[in-house]
Amino acid sequence: MFNKKIAIIGSGNVASHLAEVFFEQKLDVTEIYSRNTEEAEKIATAFRIPLVKNLKDVGKNADIIFLAVSDDAIEEVCNNLSCTDKIIAHCSGIANTELLKVCTNNYACFYPLQTFTKNHKVDFSQIPILITASNSETENILKDLANKISLKVAVISDIQRQKLHLSAVIVNNFTNHLFTLSSNYLAKNNIDFDYLKPLIQETVNKISAKNPKENQTGPAKRNDIKTIEKHFSLIEDEDLLEIYRILTKSIYNTHND
Amino acid sequence: MFNKKIAIIGSGNVASHLAEVFFEQKLDVTEIYSRNTEEAEKIATAFRIPLVKNLKDVGKNADIIFLAVSDDAIEEVCNNLSCTDKIIAHCSGIANTELLKVCTNNYACFYPLQTFTKNHKVDFSQIPILITASNSETENILKDLANKISLKVAVISDIQRQKLHLSAVIVNNFTNHLFTLSSNYLAKNNIDFDYLKPLIQETVNKISAKNPKENQTGPAKRNDIKTIEKHFSLIEDEDLLEIYRILTKSIYNTHND
Repeated sequence: MFNKKIAIIGSGNVASHLAEVFFEQKLDVTEIYSRNTEEAEKIATAFRIPLVKNLKDVGKNADIIFLAVSDDAIEEVCNNLSCTDKIIAHCSGIANTELLKVCTNNYACFYPLQTFTKNHKVDFSQIPILITASNSETENILKDLANKISLKVAVISDIQRQKLHLSAVIVNNFTNHLFTLSSNYLAKNNIDFDYLKPLIQETVNKISAKNPKENQTGPAKRNDIKTIEKHFSLIEDEDLLEIYRILTKSIYNTHND
Repeated sequence: MFNKKIAIIGSGNVASHLAEVFFEQKLDVTEIYSRNTEEAEKIATAFRIPLVKNLKDVGKNADIIFLAVSDDAIEEVCNNLSCTDKIIAHCSGIANTELLKVCTNNYACFYPLQTFTKNHKVDFSQIPILITASNSETENILKDLANKISLKVAVISDIQRQKLHLSAVIVNNFTNHLFTLSSNYLAKNNIDFDYLKPLIQETVNKISAKNPKENQTGPAKRNDIKTIEKHFSLIEDEDLLEIYRILTKSIYNTHND
């Protein structure tokens, strides 16, 4: 049984999803605080968590304080917390854990590697939770907690997590932007983006079977100049043209060493 | 009932998947030919299709001839077919249908918008089939056939199909290349690419609910210079750095007009 008491600071996507999964797993969340009182109240009500109205009062009843706030806010919130020997963990992929050193010796990062959207349910058991901790006791407590909500828990260093965060930006933000560019291009040409959805799904299905390099197909890989030039002639937007050119060059270089 | 006889020229991914779905739907495929006799024989055996050994003999027993060959081969194969009044359709996203005019007046494109891998089953009913035809009789026959195997059949022009093909390259080839870049980057740093798979799946799940522009998140969109500079410092590869820079600029421009 996991019997530590948990406080959550924050009311954004990560805060609300953590509150939800902790609630579902019947974990003991004793406090929530956010400078956005309205949003904090919604989470407090939905998951029956006592709302704390003053940052200075946070953590009085908790063993672990989650700092589920934006990267920029971590330092400021930390400086305004009462100093403590409790565990304080941020949830950022990119921030150093040492940022939290000013508050406690038991600092950590508890990073759920997923893109969260409010009111959009995800299966937490499949989300990797990556833990970095300042000492082994903190690490063990957070691992126990993570194992309650996910099947994919690992301990990694700050630098490894930051490299994963960079990779997450590539496969999530950049990929989604390619979808946006296609969607905008097709909309301008009165063609339905929905035609591409089965292809997009299959692109992802394929990475469960083989590594992405083996799955690569298309004109750039086989240096099909005729098709590439035809595509060039179909693009008006300068940004899209530059992206097309650079990704085509990179695919060619990757597969024709 | 669809009672036209079908011939298939080709033995690659599209040819074998068409042969399979026609077989499953009990359509009458009377011939298969490929210059790669070995591959053609495999398909002929698997789906009980008579094998034709000479290109000049193809189409004698068929009403519709599918040219499921590589883009480069379409013209050459076409020039070596006996001229005919049968329907001849290529399956290319990018080739003009008029290429086939030298063979017949009843020419067309029958384009299944999907990425096919041999021995990897896909659900054909969900694959858009996009038809371009030289006349309405040809169009109607191909629509009837397409409706036997897919729920998503549409008639579009050559130029629209070519624009879709360009978009398919963006969302499939370019997206997969971003996966490859991440995978290579993580491998170099001894980090498991599997950590990213739930995120990749969720990135795709989100486009069924909202359009991709609304789903965009991340440091580029919110102009989070601190995170972007941290990422820069974590990339050594010049190609990846250029791609990161250009996609970040494009995301920023798209969302901050």
